Amino acid sequence: MMGRTIDQLKLGDYEEFSKTVSESDIYLFGGVSGDMNPAHIDEQFASNTFFKGRIAHGILVGSFISTVIGMKLPGPGTIYLEQQYKFLAPVRIGDTITAKAEVIEIKSEKNKITLQTRCFNQNGVMVIDGTALVSPPKPKKQ
Amino acid sequence: MMGRTIDQLKLGDYEEFSKTVSESDIYLFGGVSGDMNPAHIDEQFASNTFFKGRIAHGILVGSFISTVIGMKLPGPGTIYLEQQYKFLAPVRIGDTITAKAEVIEIKSEKNKITLQTRCFNQNGVMVIDGTALVSPPKPKKQ
Amino acid sequence: MMGRTIDQLKLGDYEEFSKTVSESDIYLFGGVSGDMNPAHIDEQFASNTFFKGRIAHGILVGSFISTVIGMKLPGPGTIYLEQQYKFLAPVRIGDTITAKAEVIEIKSEKNKITLQTRCFNQNGVMVIDGTALVSPPKPKKQ
Amino acid sequence: MMGRTIDQLKLGDYEEFSKTVSESDIYLFGGVSGDMNPAHIDEQFASNTFFKGRIAHGILVGSFISTVIGMKLPGPGTIYLEQQYKFLAPVRIGDTITAKAEVIEIKSEKNKITLQTRCFNQNGVMVIDGTALVSPPKPKKQ
Repeated sequence: MMGRTIDQLKLGDYEEFSKTVSESDIYLFGGVSGDMNPAHIDEQFASNTFFKGRIAHGILVGSFISTVIGMKLPGPGTIYLEQQYKFLAPVRIGDTITAKAEVIEIKSEKNKITLQTRCFNQNGVMVIDGTALVSPPKPKKQ
Repeated sequence: MMGRTIDQLKLGDYEEFSKTVSESDIYLFGGVSGDMNPAHIDEQFASNTFFKGRIAHGILVGSFISTVIGMKLPGPGTIYLEQQYKFLAPVRIGDTITAKAEVIEIKSEKNKITLQTRCFNQNGVMVIDGTALVSPPKPKKQ
Repeated sequence: MMGRTIDQLKLGDYEEFSKTVSESDIYLFGGVSGDMNPAHIDEQFASNTFFKGRIAHGILVGSFISTVIGMKLPGPGTIYLEQQYKFLAPVRIGDTITAKAEVIEIKSEKNKITLQTRCFNQNGVMVIDGTALVSPPKPKKQ
Repeated sequence: MMGRTIDQLKLGDYEEFSKTVSESDIYLFGGVSGDMNPAHIDEQFASNTFFKGRIAHGILVGSFISTVIGMKLPGPGTIYLEQQYKFLAPVRIGDTITAKAEVIEIKSEKNKITLQTRCFNQNGVMVIDGTALVSPPKPKKQ
């Protein structure tokens, strides 16, 4: 049930997670976070903004990166140290987002790796760019 | 319903949002994000980790910052450009988190501001440190 | 508040429950079960499968049978012993499902009954066939 | 993103999924299924039953098996044909359930496999026994 240790990781390794963002995702995220910004939950307000309609919370979309890191790369047992997001384009209800995390730096002596973390929509448009710093699970002592 | 424009903001302005993190918050966040990392949803697994029990997703805690930004400072109409998180300490079921955003830089010519964004638990321990870059709502043309 | 005892049941008795399956039902079921199979939450993936789009989890549809049993036939106080499902056809977002449970065998000495348990969509297509074995609530002692 | 084809499976292969069952899981499952049986959502009623308190819906616990099948064994692309559950013991709020699916029969000519599907609580007590019949994803044509 443990994810990969630093010895089992190499530059270029990557994993992905995809989800179609539903209206219920946005509403539940609003409830959990408390973020009731009308851009996300008020179609009348949102239709008069630059984005011309409700959009998903940036952090909701960014959370899919957490899914890749916590479940796949490195996976369970990983300690999440840092995350940086650049929000590049809006995500709308019905968009299918693919979050991708790729190993771009390995600091074995500190047991830390840097991941390039990006999200793309169904048209291949990058909607989030960024990096994460994580500490993979340590090997079991023998 | 619009938030503050850049002319209405000054260095040191801040706002906060507080929430007690419930088990249901963590479970719903798991469902929305897809992040079923056992550190969050499996007490048996989690009790054998460094943290000795289930912890909240870091991004769930970080989402409270989005709440401050999107609802209060600058508020509705803001465009979220960048967010950086450093996860400093675990958050457990029942912890009460206060997210605080404070204006630390104003770039009027680009209509952008930088916020220091931090989360604290009920004991005053900083659990997240970081910054956000946002574009406040523009004044209505006359 | 108690359901029917075995003396109050006869062969051919039946009850139904109907619900239109929403996208949010599927997403919440995914969150509760942990089943993030892309067939259910990734429209891009699902549109390239045999089913040509996202479908509901079979067990979500099957859960409507539990609703009939636990609330109506025999109702509260029933102990659910066995359930068999055959998944015959896909259920899509917006389909209206009717779950029907009908008494087909009564074992009075063991206080158990067998129910034929079927689900149909709005076009009358059987999407689940199967049976349940349950123990109805016992009469109150006097 | 596709699961294992029948050529990639052998007798004895197994996968697991674990989750601590929360009160919110039971309530959300009640909302999605419509199953408002007081055994699950009414502590006053439930404390006077044989089980002495609220218990999880059997199908909610059984849904963790769907998670193993749909995500891991055989995984995405699998068609779920049949599921049989025997409910052997109650599951309470706070129990940690491990669902395990193991290949016990392979019918290559029909592209079907039978899985033994069992759920255990944190004390090793089997709470569900049963089997599933599934059709693994077919190899891509070349």
